[in-house]
Amino acid sequence: MFPDQLPPPTKRADAERNRDKILAAARTAFADPGAEVSMAEISRRAGVGMATLYRNFPGRRELLEALYGDEVDAICAAAERVDGDTPGAALMAWLHRFFAFASTKHHIASELLAQTGSSNPVFGESRARGLDAGRPLLAAAQRTREVRDHLTIEQVLDMIVAIAQIRGEPDYRESILQIALDGLRLPPETGPRETARVGDR
Amino acid sequence: MFPDQLPPPTKRADAERNRDKILAAARTAFADPGAEVSMAEISRRAGVGMATLYRNFPGRRELLEALYGDEVDAICAAAERVDGDTPGAALMAWLHRFFAFASTKHHIASELLAQTGSSNPVFGESRARGLDAGRPLLAAAQRTREVRDHLTIEQVLDMIVAIAQIRGEPDYRESILQIALDGLRLPPETGPRETARVGDR
Repeated sequence: MFPDQLPPPTKRADAERNRDKILAAARTAFADPGAEVSMAEISRRAGVGMATLYRNFPGRRELLEALYGDEVDAICAAAERVDGDTPGAALMAWLHRFFAFASTKHHIASELLAQTGSSNPVFGESRARGLDAGRPLLAAAQRTREVRDHLTIEQVLDMIVAIAQIRGEPDYRESILQIALDGLRLPPETGPRETARVGDR
Repeated sequence: MFPDQLPPPTKRADAERNRDKILAAARTAFADPGAEVSMAEISRRAGVGMATLYRNFPGRRELLEALYGDEVDAICAAAERVDGDTPGAALMAWLHRFFAFASTKHHIASELLAQTGSSNPVFGESRARGLDAGRPLLAAAQRTREVRDHLTIEQVLDMIVAIAQIRGEPDYRESILQIALDGLRLPPETGPRETARVGDR
């Protein structure tokens, strides 16, 4: 197929806009606590017809998977872009971002889990991608001795996911997150940061 | 009823021993990962007949509630007894004990939840009792400035329960717990413990 045989750009742009509108509407709807989110409700919120909705997403499962995948893409992209004055600051910034992701993905993940079971490969793949994204950030902050060096990225992200699942207002959970991140930052128990592991480059 | 009308002590002692044997066998059975725990299996493990088992616990639900209640009693009693060189050490010792409780009660709680739903008053009552047991320990450690003072006992125990629910080997989860407890112990960000909040009694 040659460039001049492609459909006119406006049509493709329209199709993409519709897909984005649907995903944005679905994301807001799922974040609405207590809302009963049907396909009809998503079509209404997105301002697109049911035919357009089903052309983009043949079923609820496909929609949920797309939402989940988009979130995972965003958190992985953030790991590439994140910056801070030091590797430790960059890691902390990304972990806060990951916490926000883990807190909001919760509804989508629960429903996907209920619909397809935990054997849905999307879960294992997403976990692997999140770990791969965070691993270099943790390693860099461990090299500069800004965070504990005996914890793995698996442990760090499992801790954050666990705290994100605590019920309660955002402030309530964020104070708990802060405690856990401060613990991560703490120097080894052998002494204050300046004197810890002297001579052990 | 007068004392001399009570059943002879040996009979009561036998009945109590049977109840204890059943609870101990059930506790071990539920802690056995992957074991299918039926009432028949519990009767076999306890070495008591089915009639004795059902006389003590009319159904699985009553057995689960008794197991759960016993664990809560033990953790509350531990809060009274726990000691350490300082209030902070006593709090940390009790939180480790609470973590062990939260890790092992998990199977029993999940099944009770599945059988009776979260509206079973045993859950709300147990939570309230755990919070009441831990509150004075946290307050004492906050008074001696050994732990952060902006967290409530609800937040501390929710954090520990969340970490106890992480999947993985005990060592894996215990390292995460240690990070979180170290974060709790950290002095306020305004500076090292000695200079923090000078003049604010």
